[in-house]
Amino acid sequence: MKLAILGTGTVGLTLASRLTGLGHDVMLGTRNADETSVRNTKDNYGGPSFMEWHALNIQVKLGTFSQAASFGELIINATQGANTINALNIAGEGNLMNKVLIDVTNPLDFSKGMPPTLLPELCNTNSLGEEIQRLFPKTKVVKALNTMWCGLMVDPAMIGNGNHNVFICGNNTDAKLKVKELLQQFGWNQQDIVDLGDITAARGTEMILPLWLRIMGSVGSGAFNFKIVKK
Amino acid sequence: MKLAILGTGTVGLTLASRLTGLGHDVMLGTRNADETSVRNTKDNYGGPSFMEWHALNIQVKLGTFSQAASFGELIINATQGANTINALNIAGEGNLMNKVLIDVTNPLDFSKGMPPTLLPELCNTNSLGEEIQRLFPKTKVVKALNTMWCGLMVDPAMIGNGNHNVFICGNNTDAKLKVKELLQQFGWNQQDIVDLGDITAARGTEMILPLWLRIMGSVGSGAFNFKIVKK
Repeated sequence: MKLAILGTGTVGLTLASRLTGLGHDVMLGTRNADETSVRNTKDNYGGPSFMEWHALNIQVKLGTFSQAASFGELIINATQGANTINALNIAGEGNLMNKVLIDVTNPLDFSKGMPPTLLPELCNTNSLGEEIQRLFPKTKVVKALNTMWCGLMVDPAMIGNGNHNVFICGNNTDAKLKVKELLQQFGWNQQDIVDLGDITAARGTEMILPLWLRIMGSVGSGAFNFKIVKK
Repeated sequence: MKLAILGTGTVGLTLASRLTGLGHDVMLGTRNADETSVRNTKDNYGGPSFMEWHALNIQVKLGTFSQAASFGELIINATQGANTINALNIAGEGNLMNKVLIDVTNPLDFSKGMPPTLLPELCNTNSLGEEIQRLFPKTKVVKALNTMWCGLMVDPAMIGNGNHNVFICGNNTDAKLKVKELLQQFGWNQQDIVDLGDITAARGTEMILPLWLRIMGSVGSGAFNFKIVKK
């Protein structure tokens, strides 16, 4: 499948590598493709620069937000939360129309220092997932994968034999089916994919970010996830 | 131990029954003890009225917020979130001073309809746990147990052999040790009690409420909990 990933941070690159490895045709979208293509600074976690990463993932195409959105049959939003709406506007409503958009981003607010909080206008009575769906009503938005470190998104078997949960929500049933198929390609067991209903459930999955950060501090690593234990 | 539980809703009564069964001396605190003592309406979930419950739990004392707070060596806040600060003011700063207060309450906002959201002034950049600690600086506030249905709070073995997590946080290490002891009396395994650090972590545990509600809708019951899966 032709996939567009908007955003060239750690999350976007992790998804791009994995999807290419699965045989998909991937284009990364960025604000300024010429600048990104020669970015030689390490990422925020000391990982490879974009140039180093791209040399090892040469099959991945690079374009503008608009070129990528036009290319992709399915779009993944992995831009920063505070920039998402602007990035999607640049990508262009027409290029997103009638397509499934998987939103993996949390609306983090770094303006008040660390640890980040959530952008107040996208918290509690709203969410980034809902905001995208409201502004792009002809796009089929599915919130997914935003409750974990990106390494686990694409390789759940890394911990607990993959026996833990990923949440999805969105207004369109067919779109959620497509996302479930993609998640299963990543290695998620069908029974571990929890459909929480319509896109308003994105409030719930985005709002666990503060707990996630504190648990990361306690565990000492991002390589953990939640499992629902029930009767 | 002499324990006070502020609040006579389902959570307060569940905690009172269990703590009495464990041999503790428990007083429930309420706004108007005379009114509560003759309350004969079913609870919100169709469970026993206060009168029916008290007939089966006659060892549990009933008093005003102030009487209960004065009685208890350790206090549990199980009042409604929107009423908590008022209830604690009535209980009296002097009666709460130098004591451990376990806050099990979420700051639910029912004013915008169902499902509830969180009170905006106690969400994202603040929390109920922090607010109590700020207003009662000589009380040792420990946030705990607020991430699950009250049946599981006091009987974790009900699901998954008790192999799931409870979160605690607070500024005072000795107070957290006392709370851990109480949790172990309820049946929590020591290794499943996750200390998230200071009271600001209450933001995280309170903010999972919206996700919790959606999972309850998906599971069809409140008898579920989160387990952290890691390497």
